[in-house]
Amino acid sequence: MSDDLSIELPFFTIEWNGGIDGCARLLDQTLLPHEEKYIDCRNIETMWHAIRELKVRGAPAIGVAAGMGVVLGVQDSSAKDFKAFHADLKRAIDYLASSRPTAVNLFWALRRMERVAKENRSLGIPSLKERLLEEAKRILQEDKETCLAIGRNGAELVNDGDTMMTHCNAGALATGGIGTALAVIYVAHAQGKRIRVFADETRPLLQGARITSWELQRAGIDVTVICDGAAAHTMKTVGVDRVIVGSDRIAANGDAANKIGTFSLAIAAQQMGVPFNVAAPVSTFDPELAAGNMIPIEERDGDEVARFLESKATPEGVHCFNPAFDVTPAGLIESIITERGVIHNPDAKKVSAMLGI
Amino acid sequence: MSDDLSIELPFFTIEWNGGIDGCARLLDQTLLPHEEKYIDCRNIETMWHAIRELKVRGAPAIGVAAGMGVVLGVQDSSAKDFKAFHADLKRAIDYLASSRPTAVNLFWALRRMERVAKENRSLGIPSLKERLLEEAKRILQEDKETCLAIGRNGAELVNDGDTMMTHCNAGALATGGIGTALAVIYVAHAQGKRIRVFADETRPLLQGARITSWELQRAGIDVTVICDGAAAHTMKTVGVDRVIVGSDRIAANGDAANKIGTFSLAIAAQQMGVPFNVAAPVSTFDPELAAGNMIPIEERDGDEVARFLESKATPEGVHCFNPAFDVTPAGLIESIITERGVIHNPDAKKVSAMLGI
Repeated sequence: MSDDLSIELPFFTIEWNGGIDGCARLLDQTLLPHEEKYIDCRNIETMWHAIRELKVRGAPAIGVAAGMGVVLGVQDSSAKDFKAFHADLKRAIDYLASSRPTAVNLFWALRRMERVAKENRSLGIPSLKERLLEEAKRILQEDKETCLAIGRNGAELVNDGDTMMTHCNAGALATGGIGTALAVIYVAHAQGKRIRVFADETRPLLQGARITSWELQRAGIDVTVICDGAAAHTMKTVGVDRVIVGSDRIAANGDAANKIGTFSLAIAAQQMGVPFNVAAPVSTFDPELAAGNMIPIEERDGDEVARFLESKATPEGVHCFNPAFDVTPAGLIESIITERGVIHNPDAKKVSAMLGI
Repeated sequence: MSDDLSIELPFFTIEWNGGIDGCARLLDQTLLPHEEKYIDCRNIETMWHAIRELKVRGAPAIGVAAGMGVVLGVQDSSAKDFKAFHADLKRAIDYLASSRPTAVNLFWALRRMERVAKENRSLGIPSLKERLLEEAKRILQEDKETCLAIGRNGAELVNDGDTMMTHCNAGALATGGIGTALAVIYVAHAQGKRIRVFADETRPLLQGARITSWELQRAGIDVTVICDGAAAHTMKTVGVDRVIVGSDRIAANGDAANKIGTFSLAIAAQQMGVPFNVAAPVSTFDPELAAGNMIPIEERDGDEVARFLESKATPEGVHCFNPAFDVTPAGLIESIITERGVIHNPDAKKVSAMLGI
């Protein structure tokens, strides 16, 4: 692989279009997989709704959207001094913060934008607006570089002809770049390795069936959707060389939280002797959490289990238990792939060395 | 528990209503869980459609339906001698055999009905019709007794306060009696044991979400539906005392085929130290198959994975892999519960002893 490898996918998640008076253009993921439609967010309200209604989703992509949302919120500011401008900025930030209050990357990006504004208060307002747009683009660019680095590091583990399995969507559509788990597949594919992918449908919200299969198909990669429960049988009868998933939060000892179903999948992989990999940026590690049992698990509305898109399956009044995530213990994880490198057989010592703490 | 324990559920799968001129009354399972509607099959065509369209389903229940279907097919026969009657009978049998050509119990019941007719050819036609009705009722009665015996044997493994987990529907609605896996739960419940049940939704056809949850709820048993992928997380965080499932075919060494997802569930149960039980009548054993890898696995239309009831999830043109069953190796099975008794840690020797071969 040449060092200047770059991967152009035939779609994008979010981009800035034009100069300071331009707009954010993003793929409306709520219409996937049946329609590929980009929408232009020309004002902060449109971006707020896009984040709120999951038109843009995935932690890194939400961070990018938040940065661009701040630009949209101040591009028409008529403030004449920093104090007035900062008031407009603060209004934009507070408004965006209310779009998805549990998204950590949203707040991270909003704080970053405010800090940049304060650090550059001596610039005139027009230049400050330009500086904020530059920062929003920088968030996107850094995300792209992180994704590519994860992909490169992970692709070293992948051989020509490999059959991979993934769960949920840790793909380009969750980031501004080429994804995390799927970045590994995109890079391996770009290196000329022939890859076949099994995508778990990922109940209850079907990110695998709807989104992962869409983006892999669009990118020309051989993808087959299976029901989550068919994973072990597929490993046994078809053969799977490697499982690779993303993560929402990784504890200091390497225990990794990810979409519900990941833990079952990791157990099946271990039983079948299939290496189980987690791909995630270093920012996913939370060194304050000693182990996975300290990671809080969001429990979502049981109606998501009762339903599937428009169809209702369960009888009225039947309870549904709907944990949104589960925790895969480090002992089941062969490797954690980050932009800085790969941690094999992760434990607290190796994680700490990677994080430099 | 008194020896005359009988369990009355507030619904039934299939019954005969009236005398030789009566009809088969069955619960239309295609309307579950949203409507509980019984239909009267007054002629063989209605029964053929009921079997074909899965209004009645589950191997034992289909056997009962086939027996009753034969009665419906000859009840209006105007044959005056056995030869003419046998021609009518054969026409009925061949017609019913075309309703669901892969259902083993269908053919077993049809052969049994024909044998009984031949053995009783010396009876006059009216008496022969009565004898066939008696045989159809006998198939139902034997099924009820088998289910109850499985339930009694399995309930000895269940303690007051247990949390059970099940997959697919091995319940009353799959049999003429109280089911196989769910029979164990019904008997334990009738014994006064407090039982909580987690029912896997069982993608792709959702028998757990639609049918198991319906019948347990109707029977007053505490049931919670989960996505298949949430099983390991539920075992770890909520706690599960025992997994119990049915089986479609058990090899001579104890390897058991069951609905797709069972193998993944059994692996998770072993990892979490939860006993994994299979409940099935002795007729499920196929001693001609030495091991589970000889059990043919039906692969069904991938569109079942792409869809969920009326909703389509995957992009056009994406492949779906849809194995209908998987095989759980005997090594993952703590006990196989039959009407004759329980085989702990099953292997070829114990299975052979149970079958008396």
